[in-house]
Amino acid sequence: MQLGLVGLGKMGYNMRERLRAGGHEVIGYDPRPEVSDVPTLAAMVEALQPPRIVWVMVPSGPITHDTICALADVLSPGDLVIDGGNSRYTEDEPHAELLGAKGISFIDAGVSGGIWGLTEGYGLMVGGSEEDVARAMPIFDTLRPDGPREDSFVHAGPVGAGHFVKMVHNGVEYALMSAYGEGYELLAAEERVRDPQAVFQAWTKGTVVRSWLQQLLAKALKEDPGLSRVTGYTEDSGEGRWTVEEAIRLRVPVPGIAASLFARFLSRQDDSPTMKAVAALRAQFGGHAVKRVSESG
Amino acid sequence: MQLGLVGLGKMGYNMRERLRAGGHEVIGYDPRPEVSDVPTLAAMVEALQPPRIVWVMVPSGPITHDTICALADVLSPGDLVIDGGNSRYTEDEPHAELLGAKGISFIDAGVSGGIWGLTEGYGLMVGGSEEDVARAMPIFDTLRPDGPREDSFVHAGPVGAGHFVKMVHNGVEYALMSAYGEGYELLAAEERVRDPQAVFQAWTKGTVVRSWLQQLLAKALKEDPGLSRVTGYTEDSGEGRWTVEEAIRLRVPVPGIAASLFARFLSRQDDSPTMKAVAALRAQFGGHAVKRVSESG
Amino acid sequence: MQLGLVGLGKMGYNMRERLRAGGHEVIGYDPRPEVSDVPTLAAMVEALQPPRIVWVMVPSGPITHDTICALADVLSPGDLVIDGGNSRYTEDEPHAELLGAKGISFIDAGVSGGIWGLTEGYGLMVGGSEEDVARAMPIFDTLRPDGPREDSFVHAGPVGAGHFVKMVHNGVEYALMSAYGEGYELLAAEERVRDPQAVFQAWTKGTVVRSWLQQLLAKALKEDPGLSRVTGYTEDSGEGRWTVEEAIRLRVPVPGIAASLFARFLSRQDDSPTMKAVAALRAQFGGHAVKRVSESG
Amino acid sequence: MQLGLVGLGKMGYNMRERLRAGGHEVIGYDPRPEVSDVPTLAAMVEALQPPRIVWVMVPSGPITHDTICALADVLSPGDLVIDGGNSRYTEDEPHAELLGAKGISFIDAGVSGGIWGLTEGYGLMVGGSEEDVARAMPIFDTLRPDGPREDSFVHAGPVGAGHFVKMVHNGVEYALMSAYGEGYELLAAEERVRDPQAVFQAWTKGTVVRSWLQQLLAKALKEDPGLSRVTGYTEDSGEGRWTVEEAIRLRVPVPGIAASLFARFLSRQDDSPTMKAVAALRAQFGGHAVKRVSESG
Repeated sequence: MQLGLVGLGKMGYNMRERLRAGGHEVIGYDPRPEVSDVPTLAAMVEALQPPRIVWVMVPSGPITHDTICALADVLSPGDLVIDGGNSRYTEDEPHAELLGAKGISFIDAGVSGGIWGLTEGYGLMVGGSEEDVARAMPIFDTLRPDGPREDSFVHAGPVGAGHFVKMVHNGVEYALMSAYGEGYELLAAEERVRDPQAVFQAWTKGTVVRSWLQQLLAKALKEDPGLSRVTGYTEDSGEGRWTVEEAIRLRVPVPGIAASLFARFLSRQDDSPTMKAVAALRAQFGGHAVKRVSESG
Repeated sequence: MQLGLVGLGKMGYNMRERLRAGGHEVIGYDPRPEVSDVPTLAAMVEALQPPRIVWVMVPSGPITHDTICALADVLSPGDLVIDGGNSRYTEDEPHAELLGAKGISFIDAGVSGGIWGLTEGYGLMVGGSEEDVARAMPIFDTLRPDGPREDSFVHAGPVGAGHFVKMVHNGVEYALMSAYGEGYELLAAEERVRDPQAVFQAWTKGTVVRSWLQQLLAKALKEDPGLSRVTGYTEDSGEGRWTVEEAIRLRVPVPGIAASLFARFLSRQDDSPTMKAVAALRAQFGGHAVKRVSESG
Repeated sequence: MQLGLVGLGKMGYNMRERLRAGGHEVIGYDPRPEVSDVPTLAAMVEALQPPRIVWVMVPSGPITHDTICALADVLSPGDLVIDGGNSRYTEDEPHAELLGAKGISFIDAGVSGGIWGLTEGYGLMVGGSEEDVARAMPIFDTLRPDGPREDSFVHAGPVGAGHFVKMVHNGVEYALMSAYGEGYELLAAEERVRDPQAVFQAWTKGTVVRSWLQQLLAKALKEDPGLSRVTGYTEDSGEGRWTVEEAIRLRVPVPGIAASLFARFLSRQDDSPTMKAVAALRAQFGGHAVKRVSESG
Repeated sequence: MQLGLVGLGKMGYNMRERLRAGGHEVIGYDPRPEVSDVPTLAAMVEALQPPRIVWVMVPSGPITHDTICALADVLSPGDLVIDGGNSRYTEDEPHAELLGAKGISFIDAGVSGGIWGLTEGYGLMVGGSEEDVARAMPIFDTLRPDGPREDSFVHAGPVGAGHFVKMVHNGVEYALMSAYGEGYELLAAEERVRDPQAVFQAWTKGTVVRSWLQQLLAKALKEDPGLSRVTGYTEDSGEGRWTVEEAIRLRVPVPGIAASLFARFLSRQDDSPTMKAVAALRAQFGGHAVKRVSESG
């Protein structure tokens, strides 16, 4: 079917390719002319036959919000907007209302799979009405991997449910990554283990811990044994922070996810103010040696 | 090839089947006559042609130790013992020495895969000499899944390395399980998510969090939506505790693994003494209402 | 000096007593006539000579908000409102603006000390302008313990700073309580320790861990050895949750505070959905025994 | 009374002073002649009238063990050895047996208070027989602060109980220090808080979080606002690690204490291998930017 696609970055670009390969007609818009099919958002809308479906795949936050506002101005009643970015689920209802006031429908779609989705397909978690979701199903079916729909697609609930589930997905992802990271550090610290990479490779089949992330870590360790080419400095993209905030709202204890989030915060600190206070305290009561700044350089 | 197998419980029984299906001649011994091929350990040894290989697959701790001591008495120089149970790696060197004093070789083999290993094959992590490992390779190759050897088998290092890696494997497993558990609890707590089971099913393909454990949780939720048939009471089998102890020895921070271990301890408490102290403290300074024992029944 | 005091609950009632003992004229208002000095809020305002100071000591959230709105209606330009409750600091600026639009000043005051403040004095953390804080200083000086002002009072910064500091105070308090709680549980679990109460009593002087909370726990254990009269069920009053939320906003890792918050969430669950998922997973892959609901009695 | 004191380091030196000020006759031995009262251990024993009491105050581990072995050789039946160092409690029974075989008694004494104990007195937690503890009581009474004995001294149980309690004391201490450290970091991160030092000073009286450690942190922040002269690099002295190990043995969840221990491990790492693995993983699946080693310099 026909689809407008706003945002042709790392994710959107690949999705356009996958959708076209699946026989859909995609009119992509991006401010960078070298990747865009049309010069303007309006031109994209112009090129689509109503009732239109427009997939938004831009950074979450203000850019998503502005894009949806702009679409509200140029789309027509009966059109459908799908926010496929990593928006916080609390932004979905306001967006649905804003569009709904003009007769435009809204679906929030969490998309997982990263750069591998182009070839392997994307995991999809969507929120919206039955009717809207059914209407966009040909798109979803092309984006997701082959096989039974229920293995890679869930209509999780009403508007907001898709991004909520994607947020939890990413919170779990944080904790999984830290789990493998801790395992790696233990293997690397024990001298009797000759080669942590070989261990991660050998966990690929038959073990309880086998997973896609485990395979990726085996691959990363093969490319860079000892991980000497990378630092531990790790950004977080919002979903991890939101997951812990939602856990607090829902009174759900999430020690594993929170630990993995805090580990990311720590990874970006040159020195820990908490531990400076602890070190200063030890010096106060114990006369314990402290590592002075001058020594640590 | 020919193999003696001591211990025909949940794991050993299946391994005998898989090995026989792979063309090996297995003489299994177990104190329960209904599963045993021979009446005694000595009879098992008798039935094997030297140089023998004997795989020990019994509960870790005293039973493994006693079995290895008993084998030391009845085996001959040139024989090889493989401890495939979940022994703590620190017990491997003493066992290797005990057997070595009689000219018997020793390999420690971590085996992962649970009840699924029979059909899917087992992940194997072994420690020992190059020579001994090469000698037992036909056994390992039959036990592990089809495909490249390095995807399901690692000769991790000298004696002890196999069980060390298996211990870390299980520590990581604890943290992975808690990560999915926390994700499940968040999904179940949020009313806009209609069906956590469908979410877990939909994470099976394309997502970053896809894994074997994730699939199993989808299956468990399908069989028992809401998990109403199970309590949170969860045992731990040693490796999780040992992993944190080894992390302390190696000065490796493992907040994720430790959190999942402590969650198991907590799951087995009727009430938390820590929190009783906290509640009592709150009553002291704040006059906060406390839930008295009589109210909690 | 003269002071209006709205809210004569556990905290406000005691504060009125302490202020009167310190020579101030306090007109207290509370909806419960048996404790109130005046029949209505308006009557309280009537009884005060302008420019007035009114201290609000009611539950945080809607009740505080409504009280401040009501005061905005009945107070006059030049008056000063002090919110001494446990409001979230983000509510302070809106309240200051709401009152400021009518020429009324605002101070946020975190008050610590619980029921002991009556006799020992309260720790005070306030936010507001230099001028307003100076004006209310006679009140602060009476409420706080004797001794140097800087030991029990801080003008932490502009409006909001007082409640922010109080929030962090309570977050730290959560972690301190859990620390002593964990210590108690360890002492109670080790059979060679005869009497955990005697240990806590003996930590009162000379030790590094001595504190007011530690003394209170010694007292609680004396009154109820074994803490058999209390359950671990523990509420949280907002500040702990807010502290972790602010930590996330500020990208500050707070593993200790978060652990103590999650422990409270857990203390209120009959069974942990996270651990039910873990138990169900173990049954799936390992055939491990699970504690069925019917067994758990 | 008369006392031999082995080890005149930071702790032992001060204890000698306090004991002498309390009227006891102390013969101190230390390998450093400039502080020692006698040239050799044997000379110290020679100078004491039997039945002797010898207090050992040397670094825990091999040095303590060797000292006790040496004392076993030179002391006589009826003498009493007190190990006041930070020995692991599991070493106490072997030491008691070793000495007991020669008719020498043994007490394990946990001593808290650091460099402040000289003037303020030490908190004492001891293990041993009623008879032995009663015999050494004049020493304990001088070392501890003035006031009721039960506020600063506990006979916790049989041999080992003293060091067990001291270990838990230090585990709790770790968590308390991290709690204040996290609070400090939050205050320092929030721009509306003008001066974290003033806040810590103001928590000294009246607040729920007031404690000796809190006062020390206020003092440290006064001497070095911003803690610019110290790094977060923090050693751990054994008791924190042992506390978590014992918690595992006793199946006691200690998330707060463990978090504070892991924070110390982390503080000593140049970069976290766990987070290097996480960063490498993110690069694998997301094409996320990674901070390359060359950029981080």
